[in-house]
Amino acid sequence: MNEKLQWLRNKMLSLNMQGLIISNPINIKYLIGIEAEGILLLTRKENIYITDGRYIEYVHSTLTLYDEVIVYDVKDVSIDDNENFFLFCENVGFEEYDVSYAKYKELIRKYKINNLVETEHIIEKQRIIKDENEIKKLQKACKITDDCFEYILSYIKPGMTEKQVAKEIEEYYRERTEGLAFDTIVASGENTSKPHAVPGERKIQKNDIITIDMGCRVEGYCSDMTRTFFVGNIPEEAKKVYDLVLKNQIQTQEEFKDGASTRQLTKMVENDFKLNGYSLIHSLGHGVGLEIHEPPFINYKTDFTLKENMVITNEPGIYIPGKFGVRIEDTVQITKFGCMNLTKSEKNYIII
Amino acid sequence: MNEKLQWLRNKMLSLNMQGLIISNPINIKYLIGIEAEGILLLTRKENIYITDGRYIEYVHSTLTLYDEVIVYDVKDVSIDDNENFFLFCENVGFEEYDVSYAKYKELIRKYKINNLVETEHIIEKQRIIKDENEIKKLQKACKITDDCFEYILSYIKPGMTEKQVAKEIEEYYRERTEGLAFDTIVASGENTSKPHAVPGERKIQKNDIITIDMGCRVEGYCSDMTRTFFVGNIPEEAKKVYDLVLKNQIQTQEEFKDGASTRQLTKMVENDFKLNGYSLIHSLGHGVGLEIHEPPFINYKTDFTLKENMVITNEPGIYIPGKFGVRIEDTVQITKFGCMNLTKSEKNYIII
Repeated sequence: MNEKLQWLRNKMLSLNMQGLIISNPINIKYLIGIEAEGILLLTRKENIYITDGRYIEYVHSTLTLYDEVIVYDVKDVSIDDNENFFLFCENVGFEEYDVSYAKYKELIRKYKINNLVETEHIIEKQRIIKDENEIKKLQKACKITDDCFEYILSYIKPGMTEKQVAKEIEEYYRERTEGLAFDTIVASGENTSKPHAVPGERKIQKNDIITIDMGCRVEGYCSDMTRTFFVGNIPEEAKKVYDLVLKNQIQTQEEFKDGASTRQLTKMVENDFKLNGYSLIHSLGHGVGLEIHEPPFINYKTDFTLKENMVITNEPGIYIPGKFGVRIEDTVQITKFGCMNLTKSEKNYIII
Repeated sequence: MNEKLQWLRNKMLSLNMQGLIISNPINIKYLIGIEAEGILLLTRKENIYITDGRYIEYVHSTLTLYDEVIVYDVKDVSIDDNENFFLFCENVGFEEYDVSYAKYKELIRKYKINNLVETEHIIEKQRIIKDENEIKKLQKACKITDDCFEYILSYIKPGMTEKQVAKEIEEYYRERTEGLAFDTIVASGENTSKPHAVPGERKIQKNDIITIDMGCRVEGYCSDMTRTFFVGNIPEEAKKVYDLVLKNQIQTQEEFKDGASTRQLTKMVENDFKLNGYSLIHSLGHGVGLEIHEPPFINYKTDFTLKENMVITNEPGIYIPGKFGVRIEDTVQITKFGCMNLTKSEKNYIII
């Protein structure tokens, strides 16, 4: 059986769960590599994927014998079949964060379940630690992001609009990957003071500061990188802020390792920003994988302990309302004794 | 109070519901015109919208006094406030199709609710009938779709890829509207045999058959239109199928009126297709509004009675695997004695 399903079955055993209903499409993609409309049932003895006519061919050609998944077309599944899947199961788990209350009631009826129990994100928790195969995909997405950034630096010229630059990034990704992992941010001048700026008609000018936040998707896995850079010249005030952000980004990078506390790391940056009269108004980072934002969320509200082979972002930023902002972000892989940047673009002053 | 909220409050009264929690963002957009992250609470006496710092300014500038909605920033809402909103409410409704099981439990805890009751799509049912204002927006989206189709007919030339045509449609819409209502379908040659074809690298050729399914969004409201047309010449087999689809599309149009049964209409088309050796493999149509697909769903599985000012699609299609397909679709408004096409593009043979 594929390793991820095997892991999950062991987990179920330890939780006294004899059956499991997986409906979150990202979790299904994670477990069996299928991106379709359907439901994955782990019964006492079998792994069953139920989909419909539109996807049957694709599913059959994607799954391997090694997966040990039985595929049904929903039109061939009888009422009796449904009622038998979880026969003699004391507890059947479901994804309470993804299943609506109406669907929850339907599951109980349809599968005749005695005790439908919450699973508290068991699969999401498993997804936090990436395996070798996943890391390869993340590396590839990050490499293409570095290449795209290098290309875009040579592409940008004063007079171009933010939208035009964002479009060029989208084209670059579309030709080489599954496309954008999220809507690209291209902010120039005072627009850089908004962390979630939407690319607009503003034209890039001489002496502008520019922030680009970009990422793509390779076999489902995302990359995420931000750089702030300058057109022609760096104003003194921006230089001061840039230095402070970069210092904290590098310091965080040095502290990122197996065993580190995400809350403490966030506080460290917050304190240094405060000492200098600024503040950290968003998270310091987040997990990256099949979703662009996934656990662990790195902020002061929750505390995670970093573990080997988590892949997360490191993205301190400072925003001065109405003036400008600076953010520097890498996607990094946590290792036993430190971390490795998966995005490797230049972080010292970039002037175009 | 705005009419939609007033209608809903009357409905609550008749259902013995003293409070209502609305979390579906489309229903919130429908009721108070706000597109943000937040929750709408109808308490015994007040309409309350709770959002966060990112949206407060926008919400204040969008709502009018006439709406009678009190706006809170979530950070100013205390635990006590939450527990008092539904004090003395016997029954509080929630949207069981949009609220996860985990969220359902959280709502009960957070708002200290005695009896949280299912509302069975009350707002969605209200949304099926469009008011004058909504119809104006739908008309506008449909008019721009007709214009776009006219433009694209003059734009398409043999040698262009499906993707390129789809991109041009997107550009056209982006410049004039809020953008695409759904991913445009541009299918050529044998690709037209797939009802949900994704535009690819196939180049349009002399003697091709082409299907385009397109729509845009105006102030949130969608349009939806499909035309199948020909490059240079119509093969005999395609002509026969085209005539049959068009005949049924026009017949449906004539039968669309207040009081008609959607199941009967679907059967009528199905029967005629079968008589000719084909079959209807998808729905005959669906409601269009703030969502591109919304009730009523017009197929043989469910039965709706059409009512004045429903806005729905009329889209019979025939698909011959590996060869070609034909679909003709309009967005139409149901009236007392018939229907009015909101999309009005040519339906007789189009040859470019």
